[in-house]
Formats: sequence, C-alpha cells, structure tokens
Amino acid sequence: MDNRPIGVLDSGMGGLTAVRELLRVLPHEDIVYFGDTGRVPYGTRSAEIVTRYALQDINFLLGRQVKMVIAACGTVTTTLSPELTERFQFPYTGVLHPTVRAAVKATRNGKIGVIATATTIRTGAYERELQKLNTDVQVYSKACPMFVPLVENGYTSRDNPVTRLVAEEYLLPLKEKGVDTLILGCTHYPVLAPLISDVMGSDVTLIDSGKAAADYAKELLTEENFLSDRKIPGKCSYFVSDAPEDFTRNASIFLGEDFSGSVSRIEITNYPETID
Amino acid sequence: MDNRPIGVLDSGMGGLTAVRELLRVLPHEDIVYFGDTGRVPYGTRSAEIVTRYALQDINFLLGRQVKMVIAACGTVTTTLSPELTERFQFPYTGVLHPTVRAAVKATRNGKIGVIATATTIRTGAYERELQKLNTDVQVYSKACPMFVPLVENGYTSRDNPVTRLVAEEYLLPLKEKGVDTLILGCTHYPVLAPLISDVMGSDVTLIDSGKAAADYAKELLTEENFLSDRKIPGKCSYFVSDAPEDFTRNASIFLGEDFSGSVSRIEITNYPETID
Repeated sequence: MDNRPIGVLDSGMGGLTAVRELLRVLPHEDIVYFGDTGRVPYGTRSAEIVTRYALQDINFLLGRQVKMVIAACGTVTTTLSPELTERFQFPYTGVLHPTVRAAVKATRNGKIGVIATATTIRTGAYERELQKLNTDVQVYSKACPMFVPLVENGYTSRDNPVTRLVAEEYLLPLKEKGVDTLILGCTHYPVLAPLISDVMGSDVTLIDSGKAAADYAKELLTEENFLSDRKIPGKCSYFVSDAPEDFTRNASIFLGEDFSGSVSRIEITNYPETID
Repeated sequence: MDNRPIGVLDSGMGGLTAVRELLRVLPHEDIVYFGDTGRVPYGTRSAEIVTRYALQDINFLLGRQVKMVIAACGTVTTTLSPELTERFQFPYTGVLHPTVRAAVKATRNGKIGVIATATTIRTGAYERELQKLNTDVQVYSKACPMFVPLVENGYTSRDNPVTRLVAEEYLLPLKEKGVDTLILGCTHYPVLAPLISDVMGSDVTLIDSGKAAADYAKELLTEENFLSDRKIPGKCSYFVSDAPEDFTRNASIFLGEDFSGSVSRIEITNYPETID
C-alpha cells in the first residue's frame, strides 16, 4: 500500500488523455501532472534536447514525492534510451511498451499501423518494439505532424473538412496496406479518434496510448502492492511551465469533461538535466 | 561607415523571409541570424516568457558585435514593451512600426486588415500603432494560428486544398469588411502570399512585415551613416538553438532560394534574460 501520487508528464496538454484514462481505471489515486507548456512541442526537437527536457520534467515529479512516473508523451517515450530508463530507481513507464502490447493482442491479420509525430516515427521505436514482441507482424508507419496543431486549434469535430482532408492524406496509404490495428502513438490523437475511425473504417481497432499506459500502470501498482488504500476519489494537481490560463482554457479538449482542477506555474529550467 | 553585421532574430525560421529582403536591399551587409528553434513557437506563449526569451536572443546577437538588431518576429515585436526597447543602447527595430507605416501609405480606403499569431493579435499592438499614425483608419484583425504549422509542414502551394480551406475561413470575414490592405503580421505568412492574394483578391495590397523591416533598416543605417563600405556581397552566419539539420533542410522554404549557408548550434539558455 502506498498513498503517494502517480506522476504523469507530457510536453504539454496531450498527456491529459492518459489522465482521463487513469481517472477511470484508478479512481482512488492522487495524480501530479506536469505539462511542459513553456517548451511544447517536443515532437519537432532533437533527441538530445528532448532527453534533457524530459529529465527535468521527471526531476520535478520526483520532487513532488510520486510513487511512479508515467511519460504520457510518445516523443519522450521513444526518445529516452533503454540504457537510461533502466537505471531509474523508481517505477517508470512510457507509452511505448504498454501500447505495443495492446496492439499485438488486438491484431488478427498481423498488419499494424503506427501514426505519431515526425520525431517518434523517425526513431523507429514502435517498429522495433512490435517486432521484438512478435516477429511476424508487419508494421506500417506514418508521421502525422499536422494532427497536433489541428487538435490544439480546435479542428477536432468528426466532420471537420480541414482535418478530414489532412487525415485522408495521412491515413489512406495505411488503409490500403490492410492494417487491422492502428496505434495512436501521440497522446493528442485520441481526440481525433472518431474522425480517424471514419477514415480507417470501423473494422480497424484504434489503440489509444494513454489508455494502454493507464492499464499498464494499474497492473504494475497492483503487482507491487503500491495501490492507494483510500476509498475516496483521488486528487489531481496540475503544474505547467507557462501561463496556467491557457492550460485551464483548453484542458477539457483532452479530458473530455469540464476542467475544474487547480493549475500552478513552475520554473522547469531550475530542475537538473540529469538523474542520479 | 560601419562594417559590423546586422543582427536578425526570430523564434525559428520565419525571420528568414526578412533576411531574404535584407539580401535584396542591403546586399553588401553581413548578417548574423539567430533562430530560436529549440524554443519555437513564441506565438502561443505568455508575454513574460516571450520577453525573457527575446532578451536572451538579443544578448546573443550583441555578443556577436552586431551594429543593429532587427526582431524579425511579430510576436517579439509586439510583446517587448516600448519602455524596455527605448532603453536599448543600440539601434533596434521590430517589424511593427515599419509594417504599419507601409500599410498606412498603401491604403486608399482606410480599411486595413491585420493577420498574425494569436499572441500578437491579443496584444492589440498593430491596431494601436495604426491608429497612432492615422486616427481615421479602420482596423480589422484576425488571428491565423494554423498558418505557421501549415507553412512548416509544406502546405504552401497556391492551390493546396487544405491551406485554401483554412485561409478562406480566416480571410473571408476580412474581405467582407472591404479592406484594401492586409498586413501579414507574422514572418511565416509571406510564404503563403500567392494563396492569400487569391483569396483576398488582386486589388488588396499585401504588406510583408519582413520587407517593411528591411526597407526601414536600410533607411536607418543610411541616416546614421552606419552602412558598410564594402563592395563585395555580405556574408550570412546562421545560429540556432536546436539541431542545425532541420534548419538547413527547411531554410529554402523561407529564403525562396537554395540554402547554402553555415548553421551553428548555440546554447541560448546560457545568455542573460536582462539587458543592462
């Protein structure tokens, strides 16, 4: 039993789609969320910069006494090297392993599509991890760099003509390959799930990386006996590195409900860029 | 006579549209360009963060012995307060004043449109500056937050259907107001000028803020006798805060020609956030 909070980090607001799922599967856990809104987006930055930023984010969460860290950000997950994350002295998961596991379980024809930011796709991490779990799967990847700005500017409705055009450009090549499972490898993408599903067809299973990470966190905390023993709903505390107002204004896009938490601004550049 | 270089700063690559114009009007001047690609975009950040970042950018340029600083970034220009910039001990111009001057000169019916990032529009700076120059002008402003990601992802051709849809949504309300002059208040926007002109109609004059700033810099340096006396083409040095490769790959979108300069990475967070 461990009543300390779960730490969740993201480059900005997308990680709130993972928080939404955590609230569903672990309703009694406290959550500390850090969104690096002062340095978003990570998806277009070099691996070196992303690593330095992510370690500062993790150091902030550790300072808030979290019992585990979830990197709810596809770019961070695929950029931090296994050599680095294996040295962590605390339970840690990115979205990669949980998502890949869910996708391999879901596919029937062994053809899996992956969509994510340009940086994530460039790492080849999803492809490698999928083939580590099952050498028979065929993986088709596609960077979808316009999806994040479309979501952040509210082009999210199922019938939005702009998003539909962009989605068809990105997704029809994957559809033509006959994938039956599509990994949404960026936490912004679940917001577009209804539209993506329309383009891909209802027989294609969408794997939400935030949901997969939340399910995985529940398993991990259960196995290690690290769950909270409280019976009351957990509290969420939100921290950001730029003005809290923008976060408060847009949080409901990702949480899928009205946002009512407290949001505090912190100075993320004060935290160390290394982890002991 | 002063053979030191001209310093140009931008949040990323958009300021290269101003460099393109400087190369035309001041071909014998050396240019030092800093693009803050490690912290781009500025247009969605708070005024406090933008001010801190911009002062670091300026301190870097001053360290390179520039004779003047051009903030070729709509967001920096409209965010730095006049109280701050008036204390600068070096010639400085943003894009605001030169652009507004060019727009007031161009309009025939006194109806001027302004398009820019959300942060720039929120400051109301263009509107205030236009009405300071001429109290009779009517100003119609519109934030166009999707234009930057569209340009950066290559959706730039005149007949791109995605950009066309977004542009019509943003611009048709301005067209209906009868503006005859449209300020492109973000340095990315000149890349979309042919498409914007198609939507607005050929009788609407587009004011390119990079070109206006370059013309203004020439005037200023001529008046102060600060021009270079060299007869050979000037050299351009480019500095960025993230991986130089991305900059090199995309620079030609903004320069409008093949890019062949040298690009160096610097650590911008090491520079002071204040100016003496």
